Amino acid sequence: MRTVLVIGIGAGDPEHLTLQAVTALGRADVVFVIDKGLDSGGQDDLLALRTEILRRHRPDGGYRLVTAPEVGRDRGPVVERDDETYREVVVDWQDRRARLYREMLDAELADGETGAFLVWGDPSLYDGTLRLLDEVLDGAPGQWRFESIAGISSVAALAAAHRLILNRVGRPVLITTGRRVAEGLPDDVDDVVVMLDGRTAFATIPPERRTELSIYWGAYLGTPDELLVAGPLDEVADEIVRVRAEARERKGWIMDTYLLRRRDGER
Amino acid sequence: MRTVLVIGIGAGDPEHLTLQAVTALGRADVVFVIDKGLDSGGQDDLLALRTEILRRHRPDGGYRLVTAPEVGRDRGPVVERDDETYREVVVDWQDRRARLYREMLDAELADGETGAFLVWGDPSLYDGTLRLLDEVLDGAPGQWRFESIAGISSVAALAAAHRLILNRVGRPVLITTGRRVAEGLPDDVDDVVVMLDGRTAFATIPPERRTELSIYWGAYLGTPDELLVAGPLDEVADEIVRVRAEARERKGWIMDTYLLRRRDGER
Repeated sequence: MRTVLVIGIGAGDPEHLTLQAVTALGRADVVFVIDKGLDSGGQDDLLALRTEILRRHRPDGGYRLVTAPEVGRDRGPVVERDDETYREVVVDWQDRRARLYREMLDAELADGETGAFLVWGDPSLYDGTLRLLDEVLDGAPGQWRFESIAGISSVAALAAAHRLILNRVGRPVLITTGRRVAEGLPDDVDDVVVMLDGRTAFATIPPERRTELSIYWGAYLGTPDELLVAGPLDEVADEIVRVRAEARERKGWIMDTYLLRRRDGER
Repeated sequence: MRTVLVIGIGAGDPEHLTLQAVTALGRADVVFVIDKGLDSGGQDDLLALRTEILRRHRPDGGYRLVTAPEVGRDRGPVVERDDETYREVVVDWQDRRARLYREMLDAELADGETGAFLVWGDPSLYDGTLRLLDEVLDGAPGQWRFESIAGISSVAALAAAHRLILNRVGRPVLITTGRRVAEGLPDDVDDVVVMLDGRTAFATIPPERRTELSIYWGAYLGTPDELLVAGPLDEVADEIVRVRAEARERKGWIMDTYLLRRRDGER
C-alpha cells in the first residue's frame, strides 16, 4: 500500500499552513511539486514559498523532492470559447497529465511509502490534483490510499485581507470564474467571488450594471507583495486594471481574486 | 489604540488551526468567547475545543478569558418565513448584540491591549463576528483596529473529508443555506454547498428533482465524532436523516454541512 497526501498550503503566506498540514508534511517520504503552468516569474515565486515551507517544517531534509512534469496545455483565449470547448480542452489536458503522473508515481513511490503533493490554496477549489489522483489511482484499487488536507483558499485569504464576511445574512455566495461574470452578476446572487480571471472580466461589465456593484480585489494575497483595492466598481475598476497591469509587468506574473458585491444597503 | 483579532479556529479539529492563528493567539491579552446559541450539548463540545486550543497554544495562561454573553434570539421555525422576515429577525438580534459587545469591549480591553475572538470555521462564512465588530467599533474611529485571521471552514473540511473538488472544470460553486435548496438546485449551478440547515432540506427536494442529484454529507467534521455519508440523493437521503437524528439524540446537538451535486457524467 502506498499513500498519497494532497496538502493545501494556503494562498501565499507560509503562516497559512495548518498544524494538520505541518504534520502531513512530516509524514512524507517524497514531496511532489506540481507547477500550475504560470509563466516563469510565477514559478519562481511559488518555488520560493515551497522551499521556505519545506525548510521550516522538514529541516531534517529526510524526503525526496520530485518536480512533477508540466504537461503542455492549449492556452488560447479561453474567454472567447463556449463552455463546452473550454471543458474539452481542460479535460483532454487532464487525461494526458494523468498518464504521466501514473508513471511518475509508480517510479518514485515504493510500497509502504507516503508521497505528498503541495497545492496552492485549498485542494477543493479550482485545483485539479485530487481529480488527477482519482483517475491515476482508480486503476489500481487496494494499492493506493489518498487523503486531502484542507488549506486556506485564496477566497478565505481575500476575505480576511478585506475583513469581509462573504455572505449577507441568510444569503448565498457564488464562487465562479471570470468568464462567467463578464456580463454581470446572476440575478439571484448578490455576492460573487471570482477566482480565475486572466482578463479583468469586472472591467467588461456593462456600465449600467457596474453602478450597482462594489468590488473587493486582491493580488498576491498573503505575500509581502499583496495588493488590495476596494470600492464602488465604477469608481475603482480603472484603478484596478492599472494597478494589476503594473504589478504584472513588474513581477512577470499575477494571481488575483475578487468579490463582486451588489450594493443595496443591506448587510 | 486597542486591537481586536477575529481568529478562525477551523471546523472542529484542533489541527485545523493555522500557524498564523497560533501566532495571533499568542498576541492576545484577552480571549473573548462568543457562543453561537447551540443547545447545551453543543456549547460543551465547543468549549472543550477552545479549552484544548488555549491549553496547547497558550500554556503560559497569560491571558484573561471573557465569555461573551449570548443575546436571546427569536428561534422560531425560520424555514417557514420569507427572506425579509428572516433578515429582520437576525438584524435586530445583531443590533442588540452590538450594544452589549461595545460595553464588554470597553470594560474588558484596556488601551494598548489586544483582544481575540475565537470563531468556528472561517470568519468570512456565515459567522457574524466581523459584522458585529464593524458596527461596534465604527463609532470610535482611531481608537480601535481589527484584523481577521482566515480559518478552515466547514466547507473546506467537508471537501477534504470526502476528498472532493467542489467545482467542476470551469464551473461555479454556490454556498447557501438549507432554506434555499428546499425546492432543488438553481438551474444554472450544478454544485451547491449547504451550510446552515437545521431541517434536512435535502430530504424535502421533490422526488423528480432528487434523482438528478448526489449528496456528500458530513457532521461534526474534523472531530472524533465525524460522520460521513455520500451517494445518490434518492438512495441515501433517508439514511442521512436517520443517522443525523440518531447522532443528534446521542450527542444533544448537531452541526452538519453537505454538497449537492447534479449528476451529469461530467467532471
